[in-house]
Amino acid sequence: MSAEVEAIAKRAREAAFQMQALSGEKRNEALVHMKQSLVSNKGEIFSCNEEDKQRALETNVDSTLQARLNVTGEKFDTLLEGLDILHSMEDLVGKTQLAKEITPGLNLYRISNPIGVICVIFESRPEAVIQISSLVIKSGNAVILKGGKEAVKSNAILVKSLREGLEAAGLPVDAIQLVESRGEVESLLKLNQYVDLIIPRGGNALVRHVMDNTSIAVLGHADGICHTYLDNGITAEQIDMVCKVVVDAKTNYPAACNALETLLVHKSVVNSVLPQVGKALKSAGVKLIADEHCFAVLKNCSDVELAPKGFQFNVEHLSLTLSVKQVDDIQQAVEHINTFGSHHTDVILTSNMDTAQEFCRKVDSAGTFVNCSSRFADGFRFGFGFEVGVSTNRLHARGPVGIEGLLTYKYIMRGNGQVVTGMKVEDYTHRDLIQEDKGVKRMKPF
Amino acid sequence: MSAEVEAIAKRAREAAFQMQALSGEKRNEALVHMKQSLVSNKGEIFSCNEEDKQRALETNVDSTLQARLNVTGEKFDTLLEGLDILHSMEDLVGKTQLAKEITPGLNLYRISNPIGVICVIFESRPEAVIQISSLVIKSGNAVILKGGKEAVKSNAILVKSLREGLEAAGLPVDAIQLVESRGEVESLLKLNQYVDLIIPRGGNALVRHVMDNTSIAVLGHADGICHTYLDNGITAEQIDMVCKVVVDAKTNYPAACNALETLLVHKSVVNSVLPQVGKALKSAGVKLIADEHCFAVLKNCSDVELAPKGFQFNVEHLSLTLSVKQVDDIQQAVEHINTFGSHHTDVILTSNMDTAQEFCRKVDSAGTFVNCSSRFADGFRFGFGFEVGVSTNRLHARGPVGIEGLLTYKYIMRGNGQVVTGMKVEDYTHRDLIQEDKGVKRMKPF
Repeated sequence: MSAEVEAIAKRAREAAFQMQALSGEKRNEALVHMKQSLVSNKGEIFSCNEEDKQRALETNVDSTLQARLNVTGEKFDTLLEGLDILHSMEDLVGKTQLAKEITPGLNLYRISNPIGVICVIFESRPEAVIQISSLVIKSGNAVILKGGKEAVKSNAILVKSLREGLEAAGLPVDAIQLVESRGEVESLLKLNQYVDLIIPRGGNALVRHVMDNTSIAVLGHADGICHTYLDNGITAEQIDMVCKVVVDAKTNYPAACNALETLLVHKSVVNSVLPQVGKALKSAGVKLIADEHCFAVLKNCSDVELAPKGFQFNVEHLSLTLSVKQVDDIQQAVEHINTFGSHHTDVILTSNMDTAQEFCRKVDSAGTFVNCSSRFADGFRFGFGFEVGVSTNRLHARGPVGIEGLLTYKYIMRGNGQVVTGMKVEDYTHRDLIQEDKGVKRMKPF
Repeated sequence: MSAEVEAIAKRAREAAFQMQALSGEKRNEALVHMKQSLVSNKGEIFSCNEEDKQRALETNVDSTLQARLNVTGEKFDTLLEGLDILHSMEDLVGKTQLAKEITPGLNLYRISNPIGVICVIFESRPEAVIQISSLVIKSGNAVILKGGKEAVKSNAILVKSLREGLEAAGLPVDAIQLVESRGEVESLLKLNQYVDLIIPRGGNALVRHVMDNTSIAVLGHADGICHTYLDNGITAEQIDMVCKVVVDAKTNYPAACNALETLLVHKSVVNSVLPQVGKALKSAGVKLIADEHCFAVLKNCSDVELAPKGFQFNVEHLSLTLSVKQVDDIQQAVEHINTFGSHHTDVILTSNMDTAQEFCRKVDSAGTFVNCSSRFADGFRFGFGFEVGVSTNRLHARGPVGIEGLLTYKYIMRGNGQVVTGMKVEDYTHRDLIQEDKGVKRMKPF
């Protein structure tokens, strides 16, 4: 355990306690100052970012890294706009989720509340510093950021600017802290006492490593192996729709976690529906890897190769390659998805709503979609505003997660001297004050 | 890793998939059959239980263990009644939590859903087998039970009976399984792939061990170090109330996790309020350990000893002993609670509602109570019906947890061929269908 990291975490916990007591106005004020500070430090931010990009150019051949590192120009303006949007968004802290009379004079409330200390471990993108920090401050939490070495200069100046903003607004500066030294991830993963939630933002290897090496709650997903199942309930009129949805799910953004990776086809539509889907995928530049049944009908109309012996149909291609496999019935489709999928988002295409319902009930994924593209599985598209991440956990938050993912709740009870001794079962009224008062009067403890 | 335990977990996962697809009626039917089966096996259950109790008598001097082991007589009838109550309770699975139009023709729903596989590790009480299994079946989950060796015969016959009930109702029998062999806890803690949630029910040592040795989510609490803070806003008229609440919190059930362990006293009421509280506590048989300030006023009116040098005031007494400490102001009270408490339930007694609000905001506990006993922190008293446990985690479920703690949610999207490609920002309507239709029409995906 690094003593330096532990000290940072301790300060984060302390800052989180202070953040917890702040009003929404105060937190919004901080967003304004954070933006001002970014604007004041723009010159230095841009030059640090250029240094990082230059170093990346010199040491790395991967051109996409350059784009990911950038926080200058239009990207900078977009990030500032993000702060404005967040500023204008409703404050979700302090909402009454439950209000109940326990016994006359004693009322119970469940109130939404910041979680505390969030640790975000991210790879190249320094823009994450601004996005995450602003979400964290808006929601009344504290954050420990661990960035990648490619963006070390950019991360440092961005965090410095944001902390200046906090200071100007009179907020605890340690609500945003950066861990810079290498190898500190292992220390962070052991800080159960101080860290409440870890959000890894990066490739599979990073996420898997974090999930496998901490007992702190992790919000995220390693793989995104999404399926689309072509059911035998597909009608002739639906075939165009089917082609459009499959092509979109595969090609709209193949590197995304919600992109289609395996197409499952009911045996009775392999001959009728699959050839047209194969043709459409070929036009879209998609390469197929098919089992022998599907290969037989695809070989003349698409760009297909026969899956090698023992191929598991559980590959996350993240490219314009798609696995295609026949199934005997919906049950086999469900079993395949539950066994080989990643519990992210899986789709059924059918006209039969009984089968669709069965699919949605039995498939054990964060999202089960009917007759639409898996690419809709996204916080922005779901209408959650800012996206914290997509979770394939079953607990706390599942699927696309908005700012609510950074909140928990606490119970507040207010009475006038009630004690348990002597209370009889019939003394407990358990009246729902929200239903009764429709939010007019008794929904707040104070 | 024990291969036997892994096989059990695998079967549990499979059963969970099947449970997930069952209707509420079907799950309720199982409760009926489970009860019938317990009744049919009553003779064998009682004789197995007598064997366990006899063995405990022979090997153990602790008389309370006998009571904890018992599932015969009235206790058996109460447990059967519990099954009836659960049967009559509302089905919380499949509830619509969110219904939203994403774009015309494409609707998003968030539906409550069983978590999957719950692992419950418990100590002596075999009644937990019936209570937990029935909660798990009602909520559509599967459970792996690991009981203590004291109740080995009772646990086995109870699980056998409940599985017979599942079989009679046509449910997967592996939705309830028992791990009997010793030392299997370590294996269970590593089954991330199959187990979604671990609930340890037992003493501190067990809970702490589970929490420290798994990366699976744990619902529970190790310590219960609850505070009551006597604020300087206490009026003369409130002193009787203060005495009553403090005595109740300490003495109603001293071994409970929500019992009072440390009394914090604002320095300006040490002389005016504390002596009367000390007197009331003495009458109730409570022994005090006080810091020098409080000792000075308590020594003539209560059963008190001076806290030894270096005493941390963070002891979970679980008995009729109470720590008493002076604080300078509310800020110091809050800091003490956040540093030395267990984030369970903490109470302020005051007439000043501004101070009360500050206390509730700043104290980082699952429950912050005003002018009532901490003993109200309990699932039954909160009106949640059956209690799964009390959680001091910040995520998933916090505070007293009812059957909702065994549920998660999934997103179901239903469209007619929508794709992401070509969608513009203004095409996303994000209309709230619940608000619009007030639950009349469009709140269900099917």
